Amino acid sequence: MSETKVPAAELATFCLGCFGRLGLAPEEARLTADNLLFANLRGVDSHGVIRLPIYAQRLRAGGFNSKARPQVVCEHESAALIDGQHGMGQVAAMVAMELAIAKAGKTGVAVVSVKNSNHFGASAYYAMRGLERGMIGLAATNAGPTMAPTGGREGRLGNNALAVAVPAGSHPPIVLDMATGAVAWGKIFLAQQEKRKIPPTWALDKNGSPTDDPNAAADQGLIQPFGGYKGYGLSLLIDILAGVLSGGGFSTHVRTLYQKVETPSQVAHTCAALRIDAFLPLADFHQRVDEIIGLMRSCSRAPGVERIFVPGEIEHETQRRRSVEGIPLNAALQEELRVLGAELGVKAPF
Amino acid sequence: MSETKVPAAELATFCLGCFGRLGLAPEEARLTADNLLFANLRGVDSHGVIRLPIYAQRLRAGGFNSKARPQVVCEHESAALIDGQHGMGQVAAMVAMELAIAKAGKTGVAVVSVKNSNHFGASAYYAMRGLERGMIGLAATNAGPTMAPTGGREGRLGNNALAVAVPAGSHPPIVLDMATGAVAWGKIFLAQQEKRKIPPTWALDKNGSPTDDPNAAADQGLIQPFGGYKGYGLSLLIDILAGVLSGGGFSTHVRTLYQKVETPSQVAHTCAALRIDAFLPLADFHQRVDEIIGLMRSCSRAPGVERIFVPGEIEHETQRRRSVEGIPLNAALQEELRVLGAELGVKAPF
Repeated sequence: MSETKVPAAELATFCLGCFGRLGLAPEEARLTADNLLFANLRGVDSHGVIRLPIYAQRLRAGGFNSKARPQVVCEHESAALIDGQHGMGQVAAMVAMELAIAKAGKTGVAVVSVKNSNHFGASAYYAMRGLERGMIGLAATNAGPTMAPTGGREGRLGNNALAVAVPAGSHPPIVLDMATGAVAWGKIFLAQQEKRKIPPTWALDKNGSPTDDPNAAADQGLIQPFGGYKGYGLSLLIDILAGVLSGGGFSTHVRTLYQKVETPSQVAHTCAALRIDAFLPLADFHQRVDEIIGLMRSCSRAPGVERIFVPGEIEHETQRRRSVEGIPLNAALQEELRVLGAELGVKAPF
Repeated sequence: MSETKVPAAELATFCLGCFGRLGLAPEEARLTADNLLFANLRGVDSHGVIRLPIYAQRLRAGGFNSKARPQVVCEHESAALIDGQHGMGQVAAMVAMELAIAKAGKTGVAVVSVKNSNHFGASAYYAMRGLERGMIGLAATNAGPTMAPTGGREGRLGNNALAVAVPAGSHPPIVLDMATGAVAWGKIFLAQQEKRKIPPTWALDKNGSPTDDPNAAADQGLIQPFGGYKGYGLSLLIDILAGVLSGGGFSTHVRTLYQKVETPSQVAHTCAALRIDAFLPLADFHQRVDEIIGLMRSCSRAPGVERIFVPGEIEHETQRRRSVEGIPLNAALQEELRVLGAELGVKAPF
């Protein structure tokens, strides 16, 4: 059994079926499945259906409360706070994003924070919600502590992530979706397998020293923040805007997705929307974004560089391709999903 | 003549006198002088009185319009756009920040963008304006194009900068103030003098290839964005939120401070304020920020690390020290300021 490609719609139906059996309401199951497939379609497989088994495990164990209904804790003209009640991160974040968009529609700008939430998948999914409505969207989340502050050697900050989506005119939108870690663990594991050194900016060994040895990194080491102390600062800032400001979990109070599956993970988010025509006519903005995209793409290139991209462009092209070709699933993931489906009585589409 | 230390108040009076002779209104002269001294006090000497001579040159040549009065172009409950009329960046940015704070006081959150502005000095100066009023502040600016998008070898983005200030309880505020470039040119020039190699993530040579040779960097090379393509994305995002959204200059339309001193530089900014008690009681927030600061500081340390800092802590301590000891000025800068003062009929305090 090797890699196969599965049509996104079939994979979504499979996820939907699983989430239904796991107790999610139909609309919540649909939203969560759509969020996972969004990531797979855009080539961000780390946030796609690979997360279905752990989501299932947490729904069964209680770490995700399938009966949660997000509550608005307090509300102002351009600000609100949501209590996710320890349910699906996707559900709470979408309530927050839609509320931010509605408020920004009236006042120009709004921020909605979320406490008592969980892993919410790909950040860009929420940030992009305002694009069709002439809005710039932002979604950020904290995560269980896996990075140290600069100079440290213990996990005190998550690989906190941020996405911002900006509508363009004739070009695809600009979508910056980035974690604050220098690299994903997967790349370090790959270097181990291939017996390659890693750049010394990627990871720390267990003593907190930068290392170019992937084995030293994997042996109780930590990922470094991207870009040194600036990445540390941005990660801390996301934790403040999400965890601290919302009254939710932050720093060591947050648990990773894979720790204590029976216990809420105390993840917090923040979502924001900005209505472009509160500043200038939307058509002007579209034309200006097209121009800045053109200025990036047309920049003369360094040796060996074939093309210059703007953020989100590669994901956009992957989405177009995978919408036709399907989502590639490796053998191990197929087997894992098949077993889960069998347990839940949902037939896998491969 | 060697380095001397000058009391901040005396240096401020000198700047104030110069700006008055250069045609700024008293309040604008005071604000701009205060902004330069703020940077020097905090140890950010690159944005301090070292800029006075070029500011004077632009005020005389017309690149800074000394008679400008910032105008509100459009206004909504939580959003506004300011036209800086090509005057002092400090003046336009402060109008924007105060308007954002006033609006956030009513609605919870506000964003005010600025077009037709100029160099505004240290970003943290504006971001910190809301601290005493229970607000998180943000100030960002674009700048003349000196960085390439990832893969490029021409300046298409400025070393765009961002500051965010967060009030704490018993600790100093968290103040993240960062440019999106990997390093300041000054550090590359220093490596040249000392015949040291530089990390390959700092600069590109004139062909757009990363280089560890500071001479190759200085010979028509470019600074790299910090943290690779993530820094590029953040720099582009700042240009969109400042230059594109405001209807002002962006990318190659912006000029650096030292280019064409007789022509407005088309710099744009964006300022934002968030009222903390729209989300949770301010006292709770203060306690929670103190806790996260404590969690960073108390993290076990890597070998050779004496202390872990949070953003803004070093600058805060420098400010306390320099408030007592004065601002260090090297011989060359003393001479430059003395000459300027003599031209303007303002006596230098050293």
